[in-house]
Amino acid sequence: MIVVAERSRSAAVERALRGLGLWTRCYAPSPRHLAPEDAALGPEAGAPREGERVSFHISPSSTHVARHLIEGVPGVVAIHEAESPHPLVDQMQRVVDVGGVSFGFGLPPVLIAGPCSVESPEQIDRLAAAVKEAGAHVLRGGVWKPRTSPRGFQGVGESALAWLASAGKKHGLPVITEVVAEADVEAAAAVVDALQIGARTMHSGALLRAVGAAGKPVLLKRAFAATLEEWLLAGEALLMAGASGVLFCERGVRGPDGGTRNTLDVGAVAVLAHVHTLPVLVDPSHAAGRRDVVVPLGRAGLAAGVCGVVVETHDRPEAALSDAPQALAPAALRQLLL
Amino acid sequence: MIVVAERSRSAAVERALRGLGLWTRCYAPSPRHLAPEDAALGPEAGAPREGERVSFHISPSSTHVARHLIEGVPGVVAIHEAESPHPLVDQMQRVVDVGGVSFGFGLPPVLIAGPCSVESPEQIDRLAAAVKEAGAHVLRGGVWKPRTSPRGFQGVGESALAWLASAGKKHGLPVITEVVAEADVEAAAAVVDALQIGARTMHSGALLRAVGAAGKPVLLKRAFAATLEEWLLAGEALLMAGASGVLFCERGVRGPDGGTRNTLDVGAVAVLAHVHTLPVLVDPSHAAGRRDVVVPLGRAGLAAGVCGVVVETHDRPEAALSDAPQALAPAALRQLLL
Amino acid sequence: MIVVAERSRSAAVERALRGLGLWTRCYAPSPRHLAPEDAALGPEAGAPREGERVSFHISPSSTHVARHLIEGVPGVVAIHEAESPHPLVDQMQRVVDVGGVSFGFGLPPVLIAGPCSVESPEQIDRLAAAVKEAGAHVLRGGVWKPRTSPRGFQGVGESALAWLASAGKKHGLPVITEVVAEADVEAAAAVVDALQIGARTMHSGALLRAVGAAGKPVLLKRAFAATLEEWLLAGEALLMAGASGVLFCERGVRGPDGGTRNTLDVGAVAVLAHVHTLPVLVDPSHAAGRRDVVVPLGRAGLAAGVCGVVVETHDRPEAALSDAPQALAPAALRQLLL
Amino acid sequence: MIVVAERSRSAAVERALRGLGLWTRCYAPSPRHLAPEDAALGPEAGAPREGERVSFHISPSSTHVARHLIEGVPGVVAIHEAESPHPLVDQMQRVVDVGGVSFGFGLPPVLIAGPCSVESPEQIDRLAAAVKEAGAHVLRGGVWKPRTSPRGFQGVGESALAWLASAGKKHGLPVITEVVAEADVEAAAAVVDALQIGARTMHSGALLRAVGAAGKPVLLKRAFAATLEEWLLAGEALLMAGASGVLFCERGVRGPDGGTRNTLDVGAVAVLAHVHTLPVLVDPSHAAGRRDVVVPLGRAGLAAGVCGVVVETHDRPEAALSDAPQALAPAALRQLLL
Repeated sequence: MIVVAERSRSAAVERALRGLGLWTRCYAPSPRHLAPEDAALGPEAGAPREGERVSFHISPSSTHVARHLIEGVPGVVAIHEAESPHPLVDQMQRVVDVGGVSFGFGLPPVLIAGPCSVESPEQIDRLAAAVKEAGAHVLRGGVWKPRTSPRGFQGVGESALAWLASAGKKHGLPVITEVVAEADVEAAAAVVDALQIGARTMHSGALLRAVGAAGKPVLLKRAFAATLEEWLLAGEALLMAGASGVLFCERGVRGPDGGTRNTLDVGAVAVLAHVHTLPVLVDPSHAAGRRDVVVPLGRAGLAAGVCGVVVETHDRPEAALSDAPQALAPAALRQLLL
Repeated sequence: MIVVAERSRSAAVERALRGLGLWTRCYAPSPRHLAPEDAALGPEAGAPREGERVSFHISPSSTHVARHLIEGVPGVVAIHEAESPHPLVDQMQRVVDVGGVSFGFGLPPVLIAGPCSVESPEQIDRLAAAVKEAGAHVLRGGVWKPRTSPRGFQGVGESALAWLASAGKKHGLPVITEVVAEADVEAAAAVVDALQIGARTMHSGALLRAVGAAGKPVLLKRAFAATLEEWLLAGEALLMAGASGVLFCERGVRGPDGGTRNTLDVGAVAVLAHVHTLPVLVDPSHAAGRRDVVVPLGRAGLAAGVCGVVVETHDRPEAALSDAPQALAPAALRQLLL
Repeated sequence: MIVVAERSRSAAVERALRGLGLWTRCYAPSPRHLAPEDAALGPEAGAPREGERVSFHISPSSTHVARHLIEGVPGVVAIHEAESPHPLVDQMQRVVDVGGVSFGFGLPPVLIAGPCSVESPEQIDRLAAAVKEAGAHVLRGGVWKPRTSPRGFQGVGESALAWLASAGKKHGLPVITEVVAEADVEAAAAVVDALQIGARTMHSGALLRAVGAAGKPVLLKRAFAATLEEWLLAGEALLMAGASGVLFCERGVRGPDGGTRNTLDVGAVAVLAHVHTLPVLVDPSHAAGRRDVVVPLGRAGLAAGVCGVVVETHDRPEAALSDAPQALAPAALRQLLL
Repeated sequence: MIVVAERSRSAAVERALRGLGLWTRCYAPSPRHLAPEDAALGPEAGAPREGERVSFHISPSSTHVARHLIEGVPGVVAIHEAESPHPLVDQMQRVVDVGGVSFGFGLPPVLIAGPCSVESPEQIDRLAAAVKEAGAHVLRGGVWKPRTSPRGFQGVGESALAWLASAGKKHGLPVITEVVAEADVEAAAAVVDALQIGARTMHSGALLRAVGAAGKPVLLKRAFAATLEEWLLAGEALLMAGASGVLFCERGVRGPDGGTRNTLDVGAVAVLAHVHTLPVLVDPSHAAGRRDVVVPLGRAGLAAGVCGVVVETHDRPEAALSDAPQALAPAALRQLLL
């Protein structure tokens, strides 16, 4: 936002804007740039000229302030605003339904749990029962796994879709899975309640278009180093393509090593929740990367304003094919919602 | 940690370590490096040789696991550990007293509040009364202000020390202030209950030594991009110099722009609290940089395990000389501890 | 790498390893963990026991040291190494051919130039002529453009492929273009000499597999916050899928704001070039984001060891549909190779 | 910079600014905010009203463009500029003299070499001779060493000052050393030709004031995660306090692991050199952290526009008390200036 003000009152305007909670930088015409007629005129001389204006650029990470309070500051002449680059996100329905479960800022928090990878019909059935018993509302499970190493286990693939869907149905849990290739969208969309875009592909416009076109709600993880605006723009791409809603999921960003695998950005969570009133979740498992702090990080997300928590769960971590060190036992889920 | 294991059982050991919550990387002797006699021997041939061992390097950000569980894994031959670079922190008293107020993991959280800068005797007296009324336990106030710009307001200086001390005394609140120069340590230590090292000077060994030598408890903010180990080492420097205790305070690190001024690292908080059982605090004001998300970030810190919260408070932000856009009204403090 | 050494000589071994250029961390068995028989024995008592060994973990970012020099340090008992996660990259041909132009560490540098987007047959023909005249060896041009905003210009699409190919043919320049969707690989591979993976999709395993399967050389940009290992693993994925070679292209990573759009990591360039002897390039246009420092950054890349430079070029930047502010005039290319 | 333009010509102005190399964001009054009289008027109706203006915020990392070119764009009404926060740096003499050696953008590059730590009179004498022989122009050596660990070697201290000064005198080399405590400034300033502020203390205003007050030229290293503006502001603090000149020295910032200890930001170097025409240097030793890429990184700095290179040198690295793995043999210096 740019606030245009009378030059003669710029110091008072600056103080007032700061008092409202705005970080400002003042830009003024330098004397040599006054038009000759401006230079000859004092502030009293008729209609204001350009030389009698200053511009305050307001940092986009300032406190949100109601517009009329800014307009009411004496000396403010005009407010200029940039067009929002994500109008569909701005207008999106604030409550998103996934198979009958509602996600929304202020609603009771939703617990999404399940294994990193769906490994067999028995495993997903057993884990669905366990997470349901522990209080989970939605079942997650990886069918296609994006991995750092191309030699890592890449998931069972399409055949695991039916196992996941069947376990969800049996235990009364809507299901969600990540799609990593455009070619797989159709098969996945046919059986799951929500699709997931992972952190590794949040910047992939082609995949966002394909997944959005399925018309389902999408859980959108934030990329490793994405800014808030890039994340919102990925949500915009999903909505432009037809997604019925977007759940923003923070899973940790790259920061200085603080003892966890990633840095859980609860500030971004708080801004999306409290300022944008969007449905936002945390994935404390990938943020922590270590099971001994998954519960505290999940609770920190809840305190910051999330409407849901995604947790990797495994009952036999020594046999898990991926991400075992960060998986929680199903029973531990209960501590999250205490 | 390095876990030495029998080569013939390395796959089983790797699975077991993963099941315990450890991220491992396996290092093995390559065939060409076996001593000739090793190459000739099978595992049954007498005492183990070097060629029959592998080493697992355990990521320092793995889940904390009791040592006997690792020793109990069949095939594990030995555990090698690095000497802790911060033995004094490891042995530090877990409860730190500041003027009669106790900080410790698991104790009721302490609220430290007050203005960014002490501006006048009246201002600090008025704010001390207000934060006390709102539930604060300790009074903070900047006497010397480190600023990004050398032209910014640098604080009132030494004369403000007495104002701060007097306000604390009058309202029954221990006081804390930041010291930015070695030359000021003595004057500050004479009147305050705890000294503060700011984020900008956490890496300054000379200042750490001078402040530690005062023998007081020290609130140690984490530098903008410090790793957990660097932060702990700064604590070690304080204790080596004589500090009576260290309160670690997370105030946000540099990360991808998430809509707040800094990225509050609740993961580091959770590790210090739950794994190291150290007294750790958050400063949600500097992390947020915007007053509309200070309360959610403070609560996120509490959920992650802090034993205290530091909040910048001002009752006339439009007149504040520094950091007004992030200052909370005293009454808003109450929401923090709900 | 882990260097196993005799405990009694560990201080001397540590000094020697440091002298060779290695950063070490020493892990030793703690006394309580010696087996009873070990505790009773001195170093002279027969075959070495575990309690008489220490492990040095060598930082992977240490200087590369020939193995026999480490083995020659008195007191070193064994060297354990981790399996390379990217054996195909390690064994890859060090010279990569793109339509008759050779890329390789130590070979004369190759200049790849052309517009951000192919906008019309005339535009690409005109620019091909201009960059050829200015010394370029390969023609680049965007057909499908990945953009931060889904409302930004997304490229002309498939029809521009023929324009690009035709301009390349006419002016005797091999051509390269980025592919952003699996569905487009076949069409692109049919007409270009090399395919490109952009920074936004470097982490997309599905796209890497599809592009690799075309059997062409691939220019692989580094993702915004990718580590060196993640970048090499993306190259491994391409080679596993069938790519005929990989050109690693550094285009700037996220770092503290240094006045350019991204932080050009010449350290990663130097390591890939001088230590791994791989073909590595820089894209100074995206790193700089501002045309006034594109040439110095291109030269910095050359000094660090690249075998090629990729530059966005436009002759009418005011009319360009994307990235105009960082595009160089074709004539300016000449300054790069002075 | 903010460019105020006529609303009716905003699209053309935006294109023209982009063509000049500027990244813009357009801020416009929204319809509801037009004053009633504005809404009734067309552009032809007398003096322009606020509703007929738009503001373009120009990214500070855009290409530098001469002001008259922007003013010449049809439709531009006014240019508003922020006051520079570092006027003394802007006006600083562009050539800085250190004991008779001149540093300046465009001048022949200066080589500063010597050991990480001054360890004995013999060591510094021997190394001074060796680096002089290899082409160095200035001698560096650490007297007080800031270390990550408080248990690391902290330097010999004040007695080493005389050894350094004497070696410099004997071999005809000006000398430079880092000061880490305010209390040491006077002793150091009495014998050295330039003082150094290290990366760990760049944010310490008190130390900047004390060092600047000595009236000497100061080599100012950039902090681990400092922005370009924070670095320039530290220079401003030095000049405000009385420093006779500032040499900006880039030594690597924190970024994603690229195989080196830090990420050498040649973009910041290029901007300071080519756009600000300030004297800027690189320290490839700390950036690399590994001796096998020190020379390529030093050359990359030279290509980016530095006027000097600082290199840690040691002739017996196995005996060095600090930073041995990144120290270069004196003879290797010659490769830098080839």
